[in-house]
Amino acid sequence: MSIENLSCNKSFGGWHKQYSHYSDTLNCTMRFAIYLPPQVSIGDKVPALYWLSGLTCTDENFMQKAGAQRIAAELGMAIIVPDTSPRGAEVADDDSYDLGKGAGFYVNATEAPWNRHYRMYDYVLNELPALVESMFPLNDQRSISGHSMGGHGALVLAMRNPERYRSVSAFSPISNPVNCPWGKKAFNAYLGKDTAAWADYDASLLMRQASQFVPVLVDQGEADDFLTEQLKPETLEAAASHSGYPLALNRREGYDHSYYFIASFIEQHLRFHAEHLTR
Amino acid sequence: MSIENLSCNKSFGGWHKQYSHYSDTLNCTMRFAIYLPPQVSIGDKVPALYWLSGLTCTDENFMQKAGAQRIAAELGMAIIVPDTSPRGAEVADDDSYDLGKGAGFYVNATEAPWNRHYRMYDYVLNELPALVESMFPLNDQRSISGHSMGGHGALVLAMRNPERYRSVSAFSPISNPVNCPWGKKAFNAYLGKDTAAWADYDASLLMRQASQFVPVLVDQGEADDFLTEQLKPETLEAAASHSGYPLALNRREGYDHSYYFIASFIEQHLRFHAEHLTR
Repeated sequence: MSIENLSCNKSFGGWHKQYSHYSDTLNCTMRFAIYLPPQVSIGDKVPALYWLSGLTCTDENFMQKAGAQRIAAELGMAIIVPDTSPRGAEVADDDSYDLGKGAGFYVNATEAPWNRHYRMYDYVLNELPALVESMFPLNDQRSISGHSMGGHGALVLAMRNPERYRSVSAFSPISNPVNCPWGKKAFNAYLGKDTAAWADYDASLLMRQASQFVPVLVDQGEADDFLTEQLKPETLEAAASHSGYPLALNRREGYDHSYYFIASFIEQHLRFHAEHLTR
Repeated sequence: MSIENLSCNKSFGGWHKQYSHYSDTLNCTMRFAIYLPPQVSIGDKVPALYWLSGLTCTDENFMQKAGAQRIAAELGMAIIVPDTSPRGAEVADDDSYDLGKGAGFYVNATEAPWNRHYRMYDYVLNELPALVESMFPLNDQRSISGHSMGGHGALVLAMRNPERYRSVSAFSPISNPVNCPWGKKAFNAYLGKDTAAWADYDASLLMRQASQFVPVLVDQGEADDFLTEQLKPETLEAAASHSGYPLALNRREGYDHSYYFIASFIEQHLRFHAEHLTR
């Protein structure tokens, strides 16, 4: 296992670091970022929040724009941010922004040519946690959050693996991908025409059938340009009310789909996760 | 005067907006950003902090990465961020990152070809405040801050115009540009070979001679790659001790030149300015 440290910046008394490593799950070299809070300097093992970013993003968007480090430093929480797809010249791609690189959708692709590299579901669930928990002073407490495509990924990963995550949150998640243009396009390509296979990656369908619960917090801006056609938070609310899932969903007047929205409410999300994580 | 709104994002209950306008001072179209805190919605006139960015930046770096809006919203303070140079196809440029576009150095150039557009000193001091104070609910209380080249600009503007600014702060400023490679290269091009003209744009020389004071706060990372060759904060300390200038300079162990450093201490800078600004 070769792993290379790419950057290191002191931040709120802790450290932001970027690494590259070869991923056996994705068959390519990947970059991720980690924020280590100051508590690790005094020998504490800390819990970790995984953040999954949206379409076109890398590990950098959240770390540079969300302002999460201040609160993570206070709470003693690591933050781990993977990239949003496999990368590299050998990886299949598409000219559009919402398929291929930057648009892995946190699924395990079954269709060629995508199935050679696009296994972000397994990478985020298994390989990345095993790697960072072997390298850094992390305990076994994990929560997960994300934005848009990453909000979809966080909800799906947590609902399918309630034993792995203490809590889940999302900003502006793609709540019902089997019924929106972004989701249909990606699932068609990555999972094929048989829509039965899509249900395992749809937060609203999973939430409707769930019997084992992970606490969920969702924030959605009401001035989000993608709200009606792509995000559909009402399907999540209907599913939660059907199964009794513990969903708290806030609609925020005037806020859009940008990181200005995420930054405005990230403190509340980190404090929510801290209630379910212990050092 | 034609002015165009380019973007608008709700942020911490207030608004981040970008505008373009034709600048008579710079003879070109310019973009700036403003953060209006929530207090303006209830009719308050608020004070303004001007932020000057460093080499290669635009209005976006600070607004996206510093995390200042949270504190500005609490304090009821507007933030105004100009670009770092004139822009446009007709504007003289250079292939290097530290001269020409993105590197205006907040001077009024006297040498051709730069003197046709590069008048950032006058733009930040006069034209931009007059414009924003006519458009937005701002009172006449102004402070100024900046990073690196912008820290130099903020210190120079405040020390030469103590009646205009209530307080000034800087992160990692170019403290003695007449004696460092970045400053010598820029001043040679913009101001010419006669170094007597350079003294008006050197914070350490101005601070040494000053008799009218503006409160100054400076933060400098000790792991900053540019510390010894380009930034030279010790010249500022020597100047302050010579003239009795009220300079508070913090050296921060482990911090570098990046926005991760700025984000870690921006709250202290905004609270420092708030002590000197009133609504």
